[in-house]
Amino acid sequence: MNRTPIVDLNDGQSFEQAFQAADKQLRVNRQGGKYILMKLSDQSGTIAGMMWNADEKMFESFDRSDYVFCKGRTQIHNGNLQVIVTSIERMDPSEIELSEFERFDAAAADQLETRLRELLGGLRNIHLRALGETYLGDEDLLGRLKSAAAAVSNHHAYPGGLLRHTIDLMEMCQAIGPRYPQMDTELLMFGAFLHDLGKIEELSSGGEISYTDRGQMLGHIVIGIQMLDEKIRSLQTDSNDRFPDELKLHLEHLVVSHHGQLEYGSPKLPVTLEAVALHHIDNLDAKITAYTSVIESDVAADGNWTNYNPSIGRKLWKNRD
Amino acid sequence: MNRTPIVDLNDGQSFEQAFQAADKQLRVNRQGGKYILMKLSDQSGTIAGMMWNADEKMFESFDRSDYVFCKGRTQIHNGNLQVIVTSIERMDPSEIELSEFERFDAAAADQLETRLRELLGGLRNIHLRALGETYLGDEDLLGRLKSAAAAVSNHHAYPGGLLRHTIDLMEMCQAIGPRYPQMDTELLMFGAFLHDLGKIEELSSGGEISYTDRGQMLGHIVIGIQMLDEKIRSLQTDSNDRFPDELKLHLEHLVVSHHGQLEYGSPKLPVTLEAVALHHIDNLDAKITAYTSVIESDVAADGNWTNYNPSIGRKLWKNRD
Amino acid sequence: MNRTPIVDLNDGQSFEQAFQAADKQLRVNRQGGKYILMKLSDQSGTIAGMMWNADEKMFESFDRSDYVFCKGRTQIHNGNLQVIVTSIERMDPSEIELSEFERFDAAAADQLETRLRELLGGLRNIHLRALGETYLGDEDLLGRLKSAAAAVSNHHAYPGGLLRHTIDLMEMCQAIGPRYPQMDTELLMFGAFLHDLGKIEELSSGGEISYTDRGQMLGHIVIGIQMLDEKIRSLQTDSNDRFPDELKLHLEHLVVSHHGQLEYGSPKLPVTLEAVALHHIDNLDAKITAYTSVIESDVAADGNWTNYNPSIGRKLWKNRD
Amino acid sequence: MNRTPIVDLNDGQSFEQAFQAADKQLRVNRQGGKYILMKLSDQSGTIAGMMWNADEKMFESFDRSDYVFCKGRTQIHNGNLQVIVTSIERMDPSEIELSEFERFDAAAADQLETRLRELLGGLRNIHLRALGETYLGDEDLLGRLKSAAAAVSNHHAYPGGLLRHTIDLMEMCQAIGPRYPQMDTELLMFGAFLHDLGKIEELSSGGEISYTDRGQMLGHIVIGIQMLDEKIRSLQTDSNDRFPDELKLHLEHLVVSHHGQLEYGSPKLPVTLEAVALHHIDNLDAKITAYTSVIESDVAADGNWTNYNPSIGRKLWKNRD
Amino acid sequence: MNRTPIVDLNDGQSFEQAFQAADKQLRVNRQGGKYILMKLSDQSGTIAGMMWNADEKMFESFDRSDYVFCKGRTQIHNGNLQVIVTSIERMDPSEIELSEFERFDAAAADQLETRLRELLGGLRNIHLRALGETYLGDEDLLGRLKSAAAAVSNHHAYPGGLLRHTIDLMEMCQAIGPRYPQMDTELLMFGAFLHDLGKIEELSSGGEISYTDRGQMLGHIVIGIQMLDEKIRSLQTDSNDRFPDELKLHLEHLVVSHHGQLEYGSPKLPVTLEAVALHHIDNLDAKITAYTSVIESDVAADGNWTNYNPSIGRKLWKNRD
Amino acid sequence: MNRTPIVDLNDGQSFEQAFQAADKQLRVNRQGGKYILMKLSDQSGTIAGMMWNADEKMFESFDRSDYVFCKGRTQIHNGNLQVIVTSIERMDPSEIELSEFERFDAAAADQLETRLRELLGGLRNIHLRALGETYLGDEDLLGRLKSAAAAVSNHHAYPGGLLRHTIDLMEMCQAIGPRYPQMDTELLMFGAFLHDLGKIEELSSGGEISYTDRGQMLGHIVIGIQMLDEKIRSLQTDSNDRFPDELKLHLEHLVVSHHGQLEYGSPKLPVTLEAVALHHIDNLDAKITAYTSVIESDVAADGNWTNYNPSIGRKLWKNRD
Repeated sequence: MNRTPIVDLNDGQSFEQAFQAADKQLRVNRQGGKYILMKLSDQSGTIAGMMWNADEKMFESFDRSDYVFCKGRTQIHNGNLQVIVTSIERMDPSEIELSEFERFDAAAADQLETRLRELLGGLRNIHLRALGETYLGDEDLLGRLKSAAAAVSNHHAYPGGLLRHTIDLMEMCQAIGPRYPQMDTELLMFGAFLHDLGKIEELSSGGEISYTDRGQMLGHIVIGIQMLDEKIRSLQTDSNDRFPDELKLHLEHLVVSHHGQLEYGSPKLPVTLEAVALHHIDNLDAKITAYTSVIESDVAADGNWTNYNPSIGRKLWKNRD
Repeated sequence: MNRTPIVDLNDGQSFEQAFQAADKQLRVNRQGGKYILMKLSDQSGTIAGMMWNADEKMFESFDRSDYVFCKGRTQIHNGNLQVIVTSIERMDPSEIELSEFERFDAAAADQLETRLRELLGGLRNIHLRALGETYLGDEDLLGRLKSAAAAVSNHHAYPGGLLRHTIDLMEMCQAIGPRYPQMDTELLMFGAFLHDLGKIEELSSGGEISYTDRGQMLGHIVIGIQMLDEKIRSLQTDSNDRFPDELKLHLEHLVVSHHGQLEYGSPKLPVTLEAVALHHIDNLDAKITAYTSVIESDVAADGNWTNYNPSIGRKLWKNRD
Repeated sequence: MNRTPIVDLNDGQSFEQAFQAADKQLRVNRQGGKYILMKLSDQSGTIAGMMWNADEKMFESFDRSDYVFCKGRTQIHNGNLQVIVTSIERMDPSEIELSEFERFDAAAADQLETRLRELLGGLRNIHLRALGETYLGDEDLLGRLKSAAAAVSNHHAYPGGLLRHTIDLMEMCQAIGPRYPQMDTELLMFGAFLHDLGKIEELSSGGEISYTDRGQMLGHIVIGIQMLDEKIRSLQTDSNDRFPDELKLHLEHLVVSHHGQLEYGSPKLPVTLEAVALHHIDNLDAKITAYTSVIESDVAADGNWTNYNPSIGRKLWKNRD
Repeated sequence: MNRTPIVDLNDGQSFEQAFQAADKQLRVNRQGGKYILMKLSDQSGTIAGMMWNADEKMFESFDRSDYVFCKGRTQIHNGNLQVIVTSIERMDPSEIELSEFERFDAAAADQLETRLRELLGGLRNIHLRALGETYLGDEDLLGRLKSAAAAVSNHHAYPGGLLRHTIDLMEMCQAIGPRYPQMDTELLMFGAFLHDLGKIEELSSGGEISYTDRGQMLGHIVIGIQMLDEKIRSLQTDSNDRFPDELKLHLEHLVVSHHGQLEYGSPKLPVTLEAVALHHIDNLDAKITAYTSVIESDVAADGNWTNYNPSIGRKLWKNRD
Repeated sequence: MNRTPIVDLNDGQSFEQAFQAADKQLRVNRQGGKYILMKLSDQSGTIAGMMWNADEKMFESFDRSDYVFCKGRTQIHNGNLQVIVTSIERMDPSEIELSEFERFDAAAADQLETRLRELLGGLRNIHLRALGETYLGDEDLLGRLKSAAAAVSNHHAYPGGLLRHTIDLMEMCQAIGPRYPQMDTELLMFGAFLHDLGKIEELSSGGEISYTDRGQMLGHIVIGIQMLDEKIRSLQTDSNDRFPDELKLHLEHLVVSHHGQLEYGSPKLPVTLEAVALHHIDNLDAKITAYTSVIESDVAADGNWTNYNPSIGRKLWKNRD
Repeated sequence: MNRTPIVDLNDGQSFEQAFQAADKQLRVNRQGGKYILMKLSDQSGTIAGMMWNADEKMFESFDRSDYVFCKGRTQIHNGNLQVIVTSIERMDPSEIELSEFERFDAAAADQLETRLRELLGGLRNIHLRALGETYLGDEDLLGRLKSAAAAVSNHHAYPGGLLRHTIDLMEMCQAIGPRYPQMDTELLMFGAFLHDLGKIEELSSGGEISYTDRGQMLGHIVIGIQMLDEKIRSLQTDSNDRFPDELKLHLEHLVVSHHGQLEYGSPKLPVTLEAVALHHIDNLDAKITAYTSVIESDVAADGNWTNYNPSIGRKLWKNRD
């Protein structure tokens, strides 16, 4: 059976194929009729689905994360592609091709881990290199880092996105840092490594990406500081060496200030050149990646422009040739 | 010898008496002449002083914190009272009445400590009471808390001001909390206890109040979180009991969000009723206290109004009858 | 017959019982079919109702404020509980238990009036006490104050809410004022009494709470000033005594500045300590009360969090144990 | 003796002539020497003056508003022309040519009063015309209006400036109003008449223009409403006719909303077309007049540009050919 | 056959008459059913239309700009009047009365052109008059100016609206300019002529008004500068005369700064008095015209107030007698 | 004679050596005494100088740009190093070592020109390469580009700074661009080349860097658009080829939007990925360079921190080891 990946579905297309149920709600329309609103996913993405004239029994026949065989067709509604499901049936995992559904690309994550080990292992500052090893030696943390998303929506909002964003920033810091000899490139790179690590705890790992209680109440900046404290404590215990106070302070400051402005959630403005640079490099990658997502997910049928996107306050040129 | 306390000096008054040198700089005027700019203090306050026609030798003849015998007279310059020092001489501490210079009121601090012990000891929540004991058992921290200021300028900017502000908030929380049964008054009171504790590390303790490196780069909110983490760890080690995760999270959130808005340096908005309340009660006390300082330190000679104060964007009614 | 109060209705519940019709509109859906959109209320609250397949005759069969006997069932739509009405019939008021529908709690209002008389009667400043008596002696005004709401939505948005909020503020001013001896507690308390009185004219008293023309064009601050002018004129006429000019000015200023900032509609910033305090105490009560409403009216089915509330820019912790 | 009017003084010019002392302060320089800082004025303007090596006796030898004979010379300091006074002597008013000192141009004010009577008398709406007569019949108010300034600084900041600004606006309303038939031109004109009348009470009339206590605490918008209430009450008493409620409300709204935005001190946004128009016409006149003042008072020695003016955030083109 | 113009249609009215199809989309409702969403227009305005149970064939049976004979009825949905179309059929243009559909009023545009020629021809500055002739001599540009709209929505958003707005501003500049002798009225008038000319290229001319790619990427200010450059080049070539550099710069500045503030899209603040005046006169006309549109297009059934309009942040008084 | 370069002068140092007079003003102090305020420069920087007890004759004895032999000594005043000049004498250029005074580093500029030719010559897009050649072929423009500053103050505020910043950006675009295959790296690089070229006309080239009239009234964005129009016209004339419209539009957009936000002077937001990237890369380089200047020019005597810098709202960590 040839599945059409979600990303390749077009308007008005009929299908009979497997999806993974990422979310489901039983809703009532204004007339009192029941329908199921669901999110269906595969490796290539996620799409909203609607099943009309549903009932509790049908709703209970499958759970989130289950694989389901669906019949239906696609349509555009309010500018977004969605699917109308006319029949849905739970499948046994053995019946499906798991690689078609696994959004998390384990091979890519392994490559990124290798690259991370290279980058951290290549540092000449012995304290930073040792601290890097402490992080890399925490298998639980590393495993979660590899599968974490960098956001609920917006940029790098997929399992593995956090590590992707982290490596990209570290490499850009490595490339750009030496242009400014007044900066400490290794400090900058380590800041790039640390800056978003708190997201591992801020966002929940399984199923739909969402905020944890701790994420909602503290945010990844404060959590990242707590994680850093713990890792430095652990390094000091293991090595019987005091991690230099000033270096610790600079690392903490890089995490604390990386949003660049108080109104974006940094409790302190960047006051070191490395912190200024980290904020701007992070911003550069985040903005290009987020705007690319807006363009890719835009469904305006024709013309050079995406629909108006309220969160960025503009339409974007789609640049399709 | 009868000293006139600084707060009682009037315009155009001559004096021959002791002060404590809080700060000193050797400066050059536009014509190239040297003068000493200093801050003189006693128990009642601080005043700027100028000694014209000074030289390096005179400048080196005393140090910050020294007691000095000064001759001179007062004057108003740009609306502020200052002193022109015509002679200055280092004194031996044995020559002075220490109680006239000690800005820190140890007796008052002891009373506040007693009150703090009552308030924390009176909590019925065993976890909060135990955590309070952990803080109270840290003598070094307690000593520093008793002599810490709550700010460099603005409100409660004097040694002991932090504890004064902390107790005031705890008492107001105790009074107001029960009006809102949907809130947990003890949680609110403990948040009031914790909210500014990071200032012990954010501000330097000796001489002129100023920011520490750590204060400048992390701020008292992040430092307060680090201190809380450490105290809870210490409590758990001592008691062999796990401090409840959710309670810990709520305490952390109270510290993190107490500035009420991102642009005021809280990385997260208040999301619990207690956090909302703490922010507003803190704001109430801070504003009344800060505006009272503006009125008290105003030197506009006559009329009902203070001078225009740019940091609060208004003149204040002086309310003197 | 046992009515289920609106506040106790659950999702998916059938009912046959009386409501009061608070509002009604005949609407057309996209297909051109007609339906009645209504608001049904009882003592415990208000709920939206929909009657499908309606016509003009049915629409005309009852009026706003009528008691109606409805059959139907509840459902959640877009996160809010609403009712689908399948039959509706006008009732005679004699058929219903009035106490189940009267949102205005007359007994509570009487208690609040008594408390108001105590608070104003207990003032030692003879001018303020006399002015209080002038207000209390205006029966029409007093009657309207007792049944007025403090807002269209947000905090204290129910008949009687204005007096509730007024008394709460006066009591908090009485409790907090003496902590700051530099303030005049009685002036502060009288400011709390006056600050929102203009809302009696700003908001319409009957049925759905809404803005009057005068409220829309002048606002309760300006109206409150006009009311105060009139009452002081009336007091002066009655007593043949001049109300002190400065005291009048301070009262006016408390009304004028109580929103605290120009962008919140105060034409002048608070410039007296009492005005600063009144603004912050008002804000404290308004915010806690408003956020409590958000939590109470939230219908997110599960979890610790309310839905995202755009007007406060956050989700709130629901704190349900 | 030929006086050089202040506005015609140039840099480096010596003089021996009369001025009026508008303000004086005895100050101390950093070295402790005393000097008098004064403001000298004549019909054409005001200039700062400094008399070095002064003493109390000299300071007491003249009062504010006295005419004084001064010797000295002009100079530019920090970009502003000022005078160094080397001798100062009180004069008897009989010795001076009063017309050279009277900043208030009585003849011009009489002409403006005539114009005001024409404009108000020409209204066809009998209620507005009658209300206009009530204002015009208040001789005290009219006298103060004729000599009032429209601001402490900025635009129309001179005795008589308020009436000048008022007439200009009324005439522009008369000219522009009929272009928009959807507006009521007479209502608009009357709004222009009323909009700033509260400034008569907001600003003190004699000597240096400054805020009154009432101006500082209520502002001219609220004061203007109080004045309007009083005048309508007075008109109703005199005429035994009720002034139409809606018309009164519209007049009040024009006063209340004329600053156009909450953050500029209007407690309500303009919601009628006349209020929208009044705000923009007021703004047009205020901005052109204020920017013209900046250009006229600029002393940058050469070039096409004024100095940078922080309150308007720019340099202005001086346009001098 | 008597057509009812769109502007005169009432709620619940049946019709059988011609419209022009301004826009059409084939959409799918949540249940998967297809419907046509269209905009129908005539000389008097535009109205949204819905045809349920449509299919591709029906959708393809007419094109944008076609005249169509429709049967259906009106209804109010979400506060806006719309039409439910039950049958639609393409008509031959010969069958309709063109004057009923032409939104562009050619006669009015000719009158405005005449007025424009008078205004520009009456300038005494020979350079401005010659430049005016260069613009007027460009027939293509003049033709497009006459039929251009001044906006996609908001004020003057109809074919011919740009010239209407331009003439109104020029006349107001002519009327108001001489009140301020410090300004150059002719420069101001020419600025009014030029200020929005770039909109000819910013907005597309045919059918629905929308942004061109160039409009979206550069905006009418930059385009207006490019047009002015070209016209001055062309004038210089034709006349063999150099257009004065300073005059050119002032014209460019009037275009560049007319939005008055950076955040409204002017890359430079107004720095000449003429630029300050032009901005405020433009704003005055734009605001009155836009608010009038809000009032005229409001469909709130009763009462003195329009619905709340989010883009202006208020309700407006409808002023209907 | 060994000159001490300005950058190497220390506090309290006497000197007898040559400087170039960059600016001079004859000023009057408060006591009426005259002094000369000047700026002295050499290759290494600029310093303020004061000569007391000066007169017109001395002031006229040298002009801006003259080389002058000065005796005097340095001092710190208000935290800035300045010099007190006790004697000053005009020198003949033949007496001085020109290389010590030429701030413009011609050799470095030649290297940058070579690099610019490489970068533009290496483009594969024939239109961009041809346009690059057109710019490079304009010798006058190229000469001015090589000696232009990028700002009056802030970042790259020295002759040659504009080309330095331009090359840095082009190289970073070349390095970063290929990380994002969805972007056109060559378009991005050309945008980096063009983005600030208007500064050649915005800022005056000789002596002190300052705004031209055109710079003040139009800004470098609009000027850059005018320059680009002219160059493309010139290229089309020379090559008889039409430059692609869409490519022209994209280049214009890169210039127009590079400030990233309206409030920073871009009349349009970036809407292409290249424009988004260019803005952020420009910002990154500008911020690091500007903050580095703040650190380098800071004279706070000791400690880890610069003085508080109001334009960036913070102190910076000086990072000196």
